[in-house]
Amino acid sequence: MHEGPRGPSIRVFITGGTFDKEYDEVQGRLYFKDTHMPEMLRLGRCRLDVSVRTLMMIDSLEMTAADREIIVQNCRQCADRRIVVTHGTDTMVETARVLAEAGLGDRTIVLTGAMIPWTFSSSDGLFNLGSALSFVQVLPPGVYVAMNGRYFPWDRVRKNRQTGVFEEDS
Amino acid sequence: MHEGPRGPSIRVFITGGTFDKEYDEVQGRLYFKDTHMPEMLRLGRCRLDVSVRTLMMIDSLEMTAADREIIVQNCRQCADRRIVVTHGTDTMVETARVLAEAGLGDRTIVLTGAMIPWTFSSSDGLFNLGSALSFVQVLPPGVYVAMNGRYFPWDRVRKNRQTGVFEEDS
Amino acid sequence: MHEGPRGPSIRVFITGGTFDKEYDEVQGRLYFKDTHMPEMLRLGRCRLDVSVRTLMMIDSLEMTAADREIIVQNCRQCADRRIVVTHGTDTMVETARVLAEAGLGDRTIVLTGAMIPWTFSSSDGLFNLGSALSFVQVLPPGVYVAMNGRYFPWDRVRKNRQTGVFEEDS
Amino acid sequence: MHEGPRGPSIRVFITGGTFDKEYDEVQGRLYFKDTHMPEMLRLGRCRLDVSVRTLMMIDSLEMTAADREIIVQNCRQCADRRIVVTHGTDTMVETARVLAEAGLGDRTIVLTGAMIPWTFSSSDGLFNLGSALSFVQVLPPGVYVAMNGRYFPWDRVRKNRQTGVFEEDS
Repeated sequence: MHEGPRGPSIRVFITGGTFDKEYDEVQGRLYFKDTHMPEMLRLGRCRLDVSVRTLMMIDSLEMTAADREIIVQNCRQCADRRIVVTHGTDTMVETARVLAEAGLGDRTIVLTGAMIPWTFSSSDGLFNLGSALSFVQVLPPGVYVAMNGRYFPWDRVRKNRQTGVFEEDS
Repeated sequence: MHEGPRGPSIRVFITGGTFDKEYDEVQGRLYFKDTHMPEMLRLGRCRLDVSVRTLMMIDSLEMTAADREIIVQNCRQCADRRIVVTHGTDTMVETARVLAEAGLGDRTIVLTGAMIPWTFSSSDGLFNLGSALSFVQVLPPGVYVAMNGRYFPWDRVRKNRQTGVFEEDS
Repeated sequence: MHEGPRGPSIRVFITGGTFDKEYDEVQGRLYFKDTHMPEMLRLGRCRLDVSVRTLMMIDSLEMTAADREIIVQNCRQCADRRIVVTHGTDTMVETARVLAEAGLGDRTIVLTGAMIPWTFSSSDGLFNLGSALSFVQVLPPGVYVAMNGRYFPWDRVRKNRQTGVFEEDS
Repeated sequence: MHEGPRGPSIRVFITGGTFDKEYDEVQGRLYFKDTHMPEMLRLGRCRLDVSVRTLMMIDSLEMTAADREIIVQNCRQCADRRIVVTHGTDTMVETARVLAEAGLGDRTIVLTGAMIPWTFSSSDGLFNLGSALSFVQVLPPGVYVAMNGRYFPWDRVRKNRQTGVFEEDS
């Protein structure tokens, strides 16, 4: 595989989720505006060859089959073999399954997200981003979920809804 | 390799460095107290099987050959095959070389650090920690540096002292 | 007035509001748990003679006449002449009016809050707290709102719902 | 006194100090670049009529008589009656004395600073700024130090060098 001086080229697709929620101070509620990905990459002093594209900005509980088809199509048309997808945690495993069943060839696709929005000082977002960008460089082709410092093949993971932790699902 | 329900067991050795510097508000200078590693793992909602041990708390510019021997001995005696070492960035590459030349068998050792202390809101520490803990799970045995979202084999990396960025050194 | 070595004694009554909202990472929504006031006072290195009591933890849009009566009664029975009340911004002016009309004697009462929860890194909470605790020490008896770095007598202020800013209302 | 719709006009003079220190990630040490005051005022949603001018960016231990004369001259020539001076804590009391002895007429001058730089997540800076901007609006003419949530007349305060706390000095 061709690699430039900044390592392999990586595509990041943004779909929204807790990761990118912020606080609307006039309405007093969480909402989506723009992704915080560029700011996060800057904070992490990331020097990877990353290009970011926002596909949608939605809560993953509201993600439809049509939305998932948009993600599939973008992965299929993507020139990069290494893809990170930011995603709400509630249906992350469902989207991973759809991507895996779509048959996307020799691509390594890693889905990640956050339990706490990046705009909170207690966010896990930066940790998860560092983790996902690392796994995507070294894992063999396939679809994975990266959360809680771990990676899981798409068909061996579930989100424990009581604890919010991603666990092996055998 | 044996893996428990939380993935492979990982040892984290703390040696100090910018990562763990904090501000002494009475003296008005940066200093070392305790490592922030447990707090960082908690923030990252990390569910890996990680055990942390502090070997020293020093600036890496002050690290001696005797200090490096302590790191080597601890890696050699460590029951875990996967080891992360937090380290000041200035001599991280030098310590990586010493570890590699010590011949530590089938261990995967990843050194990481931070350009900005964790106690600053602009720190890259959490990103780098997420990255190092991920690389250490999947890279083959060897000694690596993980910084700027990338990993480098110990003998192909240098820190650019003008920019503070780790680069491939061929 | 009697003053100890830490200045006048000040009572802080907590009622909830944006100030104290935090993120429920399992449910994915903002909620109330405990007040962050002790942590904020510690961060501000506050050495005032402050005692904190939580009266309720509610969104100010849900505050009833009975809730306001609880605040009035606590102010009336409070031995301290200087009182800060943390409060949601939406009905802060309404509660200020109720307190003023209750006739609470020679007390200086300052209501304050936040536009962004303290748990967000972009919160105005610490600024507003520093401001309210300062105004309450020096303003003459009466009921005031302290927001946006300013103070307003209870009957000369309104919250601009388009901008979220407190303004003079003549 | 004339007051506009944003309250009295306030001048903020920046002199450096811990308040504005940041981390030089290439050199690995604290240094001064630009003041963070505009960012802090924005975070505090401050709507006061504030104008900011940087006089110097130095550690207060290095402040000379000539530096203090610059501060005196700027206060003397300032059209605003209400002035906040940000200052390192080590010699804040000394500068307060010089300002008081200069005889600056009917001005209210409040010196403030921080024990922890604003660039640290644990900084007291925003709390102190909210406090100083509040005291300066309501205290009678004179020179004061505002720290730890309190205000002190210039001739009745000292910094306890063991604890870092400002105390009454009788």
